[in-house]
Amino acid sequence: MDATHRIGDISAPGRVAGPDEGISAAELALAARNHGLPLEALRYDTTPPGLHYVLVHYDIPATDADTWRLTLGGRVRRPLSLDLKALRERPAVTHRVTMECAGNGRARLAPRPISQPWLVEAVGTADWTGVPLATLLAEAGIADDAVEAVFTGADHGVERGTEQDYRRSLPLALAADPARGVLVAYAMNGAPLPPQHGHPLRLVVPGWYGMAHVKWLHDITVTDTPYTGFQQAVAYRYRQGPDEPGDPVDVIAPRALMIPPGFPDFMTRTRVVRPGPVPLAGRAWSGHAPVVRVELSSDDERTWTDAEVAADPERPWAWAAWRATWTATPGPYRLTVRATDAAGHTQPLSAPWNRGGFGNNLVQRVEVLCVD
Amino acid sequence: MDATHRIGDISAPGRVAGPDEGISAAELALAARNHGLPLEALRYDTTPPGLHYVLVHYDIPATDADTWRLTLGGRVRRPLSLDLKALRERPAVTHRVTMECAGNGRARLAPRPISQPWLVEAVGTADWTGVPLATLLAEAGIADDAVEAVFTGADHGVERGTEQDYRRSLPLALAADPARGVLVAYAMNGAPLPPQHGHPLRLVVPGWYGMAHVKWLHDITVTDTPYTGFQQAVAYRYRQGPDEPGDPVDVIAPRALMIPPGFPDFMTRTRVVRPGPVPLAGRAWSGHAPVVRVELSSDDERTWTDAEVAADPERPWAWAAWRATWTATPGPYRLTVRATDAAGHTQPLSAPWNRGGFGNNLVQRVEVLCVD
Repeated sequence: MDATHRIGDISAPGRVAGPDEGISAAELALAARNHGLPLEALRYDTTPPGLHYVLVHYDIPATDADTWRLTLGGRVRRPLSLDLKALRERPAVTHRVTMECAGNGRARLAPRPISQPWLVEAVGTADWTGVPLATLLAEAGIADDAVEAVFTGADHGVERGTEQDYRRSLPLALAADPARGVLVAYAMNGAPLPPQHGHPLRLVVPGWYGMAHVKWLHDITVTDTPYTGFQQAVAYRYRQGPDEPGDPVDVIAPRALMIPPGFPDFMTRTRVVRPGPVPLAGRAWSGHAPVVRVELSSDDERTWTDAEVAADPERPWAWAAWRATWTATPGPYRLTVRATDAAGHTQPLSAPWNRGGFGNNLVQRVEVLCVD
Repeated sequence: MDATHRIGDISAPGRVAGPDEGISAAELALAARNHGLPLEALRYDTTPPGLHYVLVHYDIPATDADTWRLTLGGRVRRPLSLDLKALRERPAVTHRVTMECAGNGRARLAPRPISQPWLVEAVGTADWTGVPLATLLAEAGIADDAVEAVFTGADHGVERGTEQDYRRSLPLALAADPARGVLVAYAMNGAPLPPQHGHPLRLVVPGWYGMAHVKWLHDITVTDTPYTGFQQAVAYRYRQGPDEPGDPVDVIAPRALMIPPGFPDFMTRTRVVRPGPVPLAGRAWSGHAPVVRVELSSDDERTWTDAEVAADPERPWAWAAWRATWTATPGPYRLTVRATDAAGHTQPLSAPWNRGGFGNNLVQRVEVLCVD
């Protein structure tokens, strides 16, 4: 054997697909492991495990809730080491949070960044129960010079040549503010976290893309400098070219999704409806501000009509339900839905491209055939 | 609009990919909806929802356990109509059953049949609880001329031009034999069925590929002729050419899968291990007979060593655990694992091709790099 075998041999830099390059075997292997929300599951207010999207960077680690400990150290006055029992003894809160992968929409970009090839379905909403991160940080006592908290998960792997535990940071202005709702969560929809959602502990960061919600969380380190590790400074940046520092990926851009109406063709997923009134419904969300408008088009985006939006002011971090009625006559249609939030962000009609394929909140388009 | 718009316009015949045709957008859309078992989840004796493979032909239907009824009619003496309460009042049994999609391995075929593009991961094992089908058939009283039972699920869609409810049959010699373990199941791993696994009722057919385990089951009709509907006579046939009647797809061929050792590269899923003893473990199963042998190769299938196989004779329909130790030295490897069952079936080293991409139980090959 040759001593020149190195991890870099099997872990290439990021790249973008060639103009006619179909989905590769490596992308397919990720698509077979990870999964999106089947769009009809938008019907559930909270998404059951198995329907909620999952993206695992490396492997789902083997974890044991009985021996698990969360350590909280670094620039704090009283470092903590807590087991699950100790966390459960603290006052618990439950937040309904819509979570979305930052790479949602990536496979609809041209050229296509090579990574997990999401179309539109990398989303889900759950009731997450746990201890407010602000409570734990206050208990530990943040040092005056501290600026960030760094979160380490137990999943371990290689990415673009870098061997790592999955690790991300948050600014303390967010992490330590009780109003921002950041949680150390041990339950999803009232049950212990499933393995693929971070059992036994994960971070939940309302309004931020999924990369921030560190799963299999075992350490929080408060630092006096901003974290510059792989998942913060190399991955998850909005960049046009490979050598730019880029801007950080953080808050979820607005998106509306429709429960595809009627019934599908198995292979093309094109929908079939009968003539007459067709109820349309779905969900819409934004990490910036509540969704205030959902519009529908059935004429290739020439005209739009408003759907009825039912946001729940008690659940600011959860998707809002929307509904409308479309009167179908025989023929082929493309239904389009777009959301606008109270901060003035509207979904684009052409995809916002960047090299990582992040934040592509292009409108959803659903092909429908109305037949007698 | 044009009155010639018909369902056939959006629902094409089955086809096989061209020689250089990458995974299509339609295949990717299926891969994003459906999902396999992340291979590290082979560590669990029973697979939690969300890790167990799921294949939904059409949409997951909206179902209500409170109003659900199962009807059992046709060539019986006393037709039944049972709600969930009535089913739960009958003596329940629990079987641990390994379920696998008949299309598992399809995307490793060349040329590739165009459908759900599974690699190797379309499998899972669960404890399924319900009422033996034989009990219900005996209660209804099978007519003397009856030959089959036909099972109808609530999922509705189009497939290759045919609008349909999902429907499959079983011969009564299997369906009515208590020893064969066929169940009308209402619980998975001790909890009500999740939506994607057939809530509130599904059929479980131990030893058969997944297409037989009809989900969202609402009707059983006993017939005096063999069923020739789409999912029985058109789909799920072993065929070399499009015009052959083909042979039915039924019993699961043997397969062993390995928990990929070490840790992965995010994008290629290639594994990294350190030099020294590397524990290898996984599961193996066959619908024909117990797995009696699992062999491993680390030298491109030139030599093989036996793994230790721990089949549980009390659970004849569940996968068997296997384990071995591999001593790694620096360099690149391809680890191969293959299973043999007591009926003499061994996994092939080259893929058995058929036009639907069914039953491809080609050995699993895992790329591993050992680095210092």
